[in-house]
Amino acid sequence: MSGNTLGTLFAVTNFGESHGPAIGCVIDGCPPGMALSEADIQPDLDRRRPGTSKFVTQRNEPDRVEILSGVYQGQTTGTPICLLIRNQDQRSKDYGDIAQSFRPGHADYTYWRKYGLRDPRGGGRSSARLTAPTVAAGAVAKKWLREQYGTTFRGCMTHIGGLAIGFESWEHVPNNPFFAPVADVSAIEDYMSALRKSGDSCGARLRVTAQQMPVGLGEPIYDRLDADIAHAMMGLNGVKGVEIGDGFASVAHRGSLHGDSLLPGGVGGVVFASNHDGGVLGGISNGNDLEVAIAVKPTSSILVPRATLNTAGEPIKLITKGRHDPCVGIRAAPIIEALLALVVMEHALRQRAQCGDVREGFPGLAARDD
Amino acid sequence: MSGNTLGTLFAVTNFGESHGPAIGCVIDGCPPGMALSEADIQPDLDRRRPGTSKFVTQRNEPDRVEILSGVYQGQTTGTPICLLIRNQDQRSKDYGDIAQSFRPGHADYTYWRKYGLRDPRGGGRSSARLTAPTVAAGAVAKKWLREQYGTTFRGCMTHIGGLAIGFESWEHVPNNPFFAPVADVSAIEDYMSALRKSGDSCGARLRVTAQQMPVGLGEPIYDRLDADIAHAMMGLNGVKGVEIGDGFASVAHRGSLHGDSLLPGGVGGVVFASNHDGGVLGGISNGNDLEVAIAVKPTSSILVPRATLNTAGEPIKLITKGRHDPCVGIRAAPIIEALLALVVMEHALRQRAQCGDVREGFPGLAARDD
Amino acid sequence: MSGNTLGTLFAVTNFGESHGPAIGCVIDGCPPGMALSEADIQPDLDRRRPGTSKFVTQRNEPDRVEILSGVYQGQTTGTPICLLIRNQDQRSKDYGDIAQSFRPGHADYTYWRKYGLRDPRGGGRSSARLTAPTVAAGAVAKKWLREQYGTTFRGCMTHIGGLAIGFESWEHVPNNPFFAPVADVSAIEDYMSALRKSGDSCGARLRVTAQQMPVGLGEPIYDRLDADIAHAMMGLNGVKGVEIGDGFASVAHRGSLHGDSLLPGGVGGVVFASNHDGGVLGGISNGNDLEVAIAVKPTSSILVPRATLNTAGEPIKLITKGRHDPCVGIRAAPIIEALLALVVMEHALRQRAQCGDVREGFPGLAARDD
Amino acid sequence: MSGNTLGTLFAVTNFGESHGPAIGCVIDGCPPGMALSEADIQPDLDRRRPGTSKFVTQRNEPDRVEILSGVYQGQTTGTPICLLIRNQDQRSKDYGDIAQSFRPGHADYTYWRKYGLRDPRGGGRSSARLTAPTVAAGAVAKKWLREQYGTTFRGCMTHIGGLAIGFESWEHVPNNPFFAPVADVSAIEDYMSALRKSGDSCGARLRVTAQQMPVGLGEPIYDRLDADIAHAMMGLNGVKGVEIGDGFASVAHRGSLHGDSLLPGGVGGVVFASNHDGGVLGGISNGNDLEVAIAVKPTSSILVPRATLNTAGEPIKLITKGRHDPCVGIRAAPIIEALLALVVMEHALRQRAQCGDVREGFPGLAARDD
Repeated sequence: MSGNTLGTLFAVTNFGESHGPAIGCVIDGCPPGMALSEADIQPDLDRRRPGTSKFVTQRNEPDRVEILSGVYQGQTTGTPICLLIRNQDQRSKDYGDIAQSFRPGHADYTYWRKYGLRDPRGGGRSSARLTAPTVAAGAVAKKWLREQYGTTFRGCMTHIGGLAIGFESWEHVPNNPFFAPVADVSAIEDYMSALRKSGDSCGARLRVTAQQMPVGLGEPIYDRLDADIAHAMMGLNGVKGVEIGDGFASVAHRGSLHGDSLLPGGVGGVVFASNHDGGVLGGISNGNDLEVAIAVKPTSSILVPRATLNTAGEPIKLITKGRHDPCVGIRAAPIIEALLALVVMEHALRQRAQCGDVREGFPGLAARDD
Repeated sequence: MSGNTLGTLFAVTNFGESHGPAIGCVIDGCPPGMALSEADIQPDLDRRRPGTSKFVTQRNEPDRVEILSGVYQGQTTGTPICLLIRNQDQRSKDYGDIAQSFRPGHADYTYWRKYGLRDPRGGGRSSARLTAPTVAAGAVAKKWLREQYGTTFRGCMTHIGGLAIGFESWEHVPNNPFFAPVADVSAIEDYMSALRKSGDSCGARLRVTAQQMPVGLGEPIYDRLDADIAHAMMGLNGVKGVEIGDGFASVAHRGSLHGDSLLPGGVGGVVFASNHDGGVLGGISNGNDLEVAIAVKPTSSILVPRATLNTAGEPIKLITKGRHDPCVGIRAAPIIEALLALVVMEHALRQRAQCGDVREGFPGLAARDD
Repeated sequence: MSGNTLGTLFAVTNFGESHGPAIGCVIDGCPPGMALSEADIQPDLDRRRPGTSKFVTQRNEPDRVEILSGVYQGQTTGTPICLLIRNQDQRSKDYGDIAQSFRPGHADYTYWRKYGLRDPRGGGRSSARLTAPTVAAGAVAKKWLREQYGTTFRGCMTHIGGLAIGFESWEHVPNNPFFAPVADVSAIEDYMSALRKSGDSCGARLRVTAQQMPVGLGEPIYDRLDADIAHAMMGLNGVKGVEIGDGFASVAHRGSLHGDSLLPGGVGGVVFASNHDGGVLGGISNGNDLEVAIAVKPTSSILVPRATLNTAGEPIKLITKGRHDPCVGIRAAPIIEALLALVVMEHALRQRAQCGDVREGFPGLAARDD
Repeated sequence: MSGNTLGTLFAVTNFGESHGPAIGCVIDGCPPGMALSEADIQPDLDRRRPGTSKFVTQRNEPDRVEILSGVYQGQTTGTPICLLIRNQDQRSKDYGDIAQSFRPGHADYTYWRKYGLRDPRGGGRSSARLTAPTVAAGAVAKKWLREQYGTTFRGCMTHIGGLAIGFESWEHVPNNPFFAPVADVSAIEDYMSALRKSGDSCGARLRVTAQQMPVGLGEPIYDRLDADIAHAMMGLNGVKGVEIGDGFASVAHRGSLHGDSLLPGGVGGVVFASNHDGGVLGGISNGNDLEVAIAVKPTSSILVPRATLNTAGEPIKLITKGRHDPCVGIRAAPIIEALLALVVMEHALRQRAQCGDVREGFPGLAARDD
């Protein structure tokens, strides 16, 4: 527990600060016998890392991950896996003048009140940089789930600020710096260029999905699969909203429209006529794709002057210099894939624990398609 | 853990099924020395209980709570508090024909696949009836938080199906069966009457807030206050979306608009010029009101015939009879108040554990207003 | 967590006080599909219950257990199982005069200091009566482990006060009120009769074993199987020492004697030449019988006058009347069987979670004998 | 959870293998604002580290600890503290021939059965080397407890093999390589020299104590303070027995002897006439010194040939070469101090969480002496 651990059976404990010597995580509970090396993890870190386009922070971090434990002769041993990423390009002097003031929209004030002190360098622990260890851990979960169930995870951006991007195809996502599922991103580039000139920032909406989901993951009350997904997503910096399936659009739905009908077919003997519920029924996965959307607020570090207080309690005007993403949502797709994978991984192990010998299903069909 | 417990330090373990002998919960970790009797809990249960208007299920359950442990001479002792509610008005025969079929939008299929068997009577454990123990536990948390910090919790309905209710005043909420914050609910009554005639159901949007919040509750990564709120809310039956503060509207915001400026004033030396962030910064409460909204999907039990499968895997048409809420969101306000209170309670205790001796604040002011 | 829960995957949350309306527990995480009724639980409760011989407390409690949830049509559903035992024979007046004083060796003083108040009736929550829910939960774990792996649990008394009982055979244990593994218990009867006349009490030493153990249960560091066994045993009222295998005798052993040699044979291809390690190597079960011993201190409620303080801080002399066991160890055998079963159950589920697909073993043999 | 974490509020997650690149731990939940640097941790690591006398393993590890996170400008920030120790003197070739065989008394067989594979280099994760991160974390807990409550922790060896060392004074402990509380250790030196010549190993008995204990730490059932102490101690490599207070000697005690009488006096208004209970009553600290003893089994790595099996299931004779402690108990004193401090730390934070506002005590005295 104690706040910085995600999961219980596949437990990821995150540590580090933006400008400290290193960041990383320990994964406790990884099943043994899976082939694993840094090469399995680095690609997702590279997708998330800063400095890769002019639309994101120019901080130059190679984000090279080192496996310190839990792997022997290229295989997971079942013991804790420590993943370490050394910080390289700290410019802590950029943050000298914010040490004595509270940036609006930032965690400066709340950390100061909670702990009585704070590490102001680059936001310390509240920096989005701390999502890197999450991405690294997620890569391990993704690999296991893909090998075990064929489950895959994909995220993309669907709205940037006031601009609706639309969805054409997943195949476009790797081909542009915005993780946009469209072929032509010139409108996004224009939007972002204008935004950068204004010194302001904008929010974003993203979508993440899991396909080939095992059926039966989740708990009936409290630790439902969708509840744990919401926890993971809302725990990401700047996220202000989470939807499963049709989300807030469900409010205006009639039950006769919303409920996903079961039809015969598929590997397990059932397919759904629709997916308004986003792959979860009663907190438990139904085999449909998991469909999750999040809202990311605009970056709080902007060049537009803001009213705030300093640590003496005096009103001041503040501009946040330094190297920042004008839209933190741009780099969020690999992070929410990782978060979704970590939640599914946790529940896959829980399901094995409690229901590992359940062998039920439609008569005449293989008992479980997972 | 194991899925049916909410919280770690103020840990609420929920048990029971809709048509079993009893439902209830055990609260472990309640601070000692608080005056507590059934009279502190029953009012919130009465707000939630069924059968109180023609717009909700007609099941007649008194929902009388009994305190079985943890209270001595009218005071909490610090030991586990077991709260028991006997089921009274089970009509399990209503559910005879759904035992062999999977209702669309219900947990029937996922329970059957997860556990290999299920209790079909009234939805078994997936019934909304299981929110009663949550409400009971929430009443204990509410009382402690009110006495300790003056924190109060209020929920209301803001949209029912396609009808936007608007917000006039909290004072109207107790005066109508919809928990609507408006004086005139005739439009809602007309809407619901038409819906009932159609045999269909609708969704709802609700809002819940905590006022007089202590500053500093929450953890930096993963177990953020907003993350745990999202977990609790999305863990409620039928919830498909959660927002903190401006939620999905934040996507289109500019940073210069969204970030809440700090101004001098108030008990702790700071007030915020706005509350776009809904009371949480960097996962930690900032003293602003917590502002949370949820989307509830339409009830899945409807009289409109639906395509589905039976347990033999054969396609059938299904109508769900029995006694159901045409809009489960109507009775949700006391539940989301309870859930919010349970999350705040948990983090209040965690904060005392780790930071109980932090004595920082603006110079010349009392160190903490909490 | 929060102190009154044992286990994480098979999580038993205990509630109640000696003289409150009821005691009980909630089991969260029980695998579904196991036949279960009160008849599976009651026999172990009957073995533990008071009033069955003149050598134990004369409190008359039928200890009838009621299953309130988690079982449908005689099968576990996978949802929480609440087990309730109503208290019947409270005589709280017996405890009137101890409410204002601290009995030596009892938890009176520590509860008062911890919580600021305490329930003095029958020791409140510190009463050995609260072991009944543990025994009930243990009966569920025992049944599952027996059905799944053939594992069985047996406890007996080996020393009572200064009297070494010796070990003849497990078959004698059910035939005398002392759980003594000997045919002739007249020496014990004489010893206890003399003790009762003296108004004093004595300690005991017990042994508990698990046979037909699956291999591989336990974690490498901290949550080792033996660590969790020690936690469970030392968590029992009055226990002051725990041994695994040869225990304290190991201190004087040479390594050449102590290490248990592996020999070919058995179902899994290995048998051990000895069992000095008590069935655990490196924190993980090796298939040998689990061998555990505990020391129980003498009952603190005695008729011999003792020096102590009252709640005003004044020195007084105290005699503890009421109905007490002169040796609480006498009824401890079913309790430590239950505790051992609960720990093994927890680790069996953990093992399935993490290593459910491990299929290694000696070439030419079935991969796992569990 | 997941096995390699000790504690919930002060949660220490241990990672690493004996011959991997590094070992270490992450401490989550450390209170903020405490001065901390490597210099606070290194002395305890130096007390534990190998190669410091001819009576312990000659592996030469400087065990230099590096703080990677959670400290800013010399103060703990309240965020996770990662402590890293690079391995230096690995000689994995020493272990080439044990990769295909199971050393008696070692975890080789159980790891192989649990995980399907194992890291044989130096025992991998089952090596006593993994106690170094525990010692490092314990140093942080010790510092906080000393500053907060004045609590101090001391361990020593009282028996080595068949040799009873006795207890003269704590002041002798740092002056000899055996952590023996006696001035003249020549008998121990002779004993150990003879043992080394024989190629065999021996066990040990150690004692650890906490002084100036706060009152009220511990939970009533299951997570009692003594239970968590037993868990921590039995979780240490090679420990086969744990005692609190008089331990197994309590079996032969009468209640009139064993119960510790309360007398007026002291800071909190009470002193105890004796300490048979070792500082714990009803699972909760009573302010008396914590008194704990453990039994450590003889080292399993010996030069005496042993019968065992190889991974093909064939019987072989095995000698364990490499660099080993002939008595692992010799270096255990700093480890058990650390373990005791970690358990007390955990419960100190839990106590603040639940009972932080309890203000009870004897009339006319300061409410709490902690």
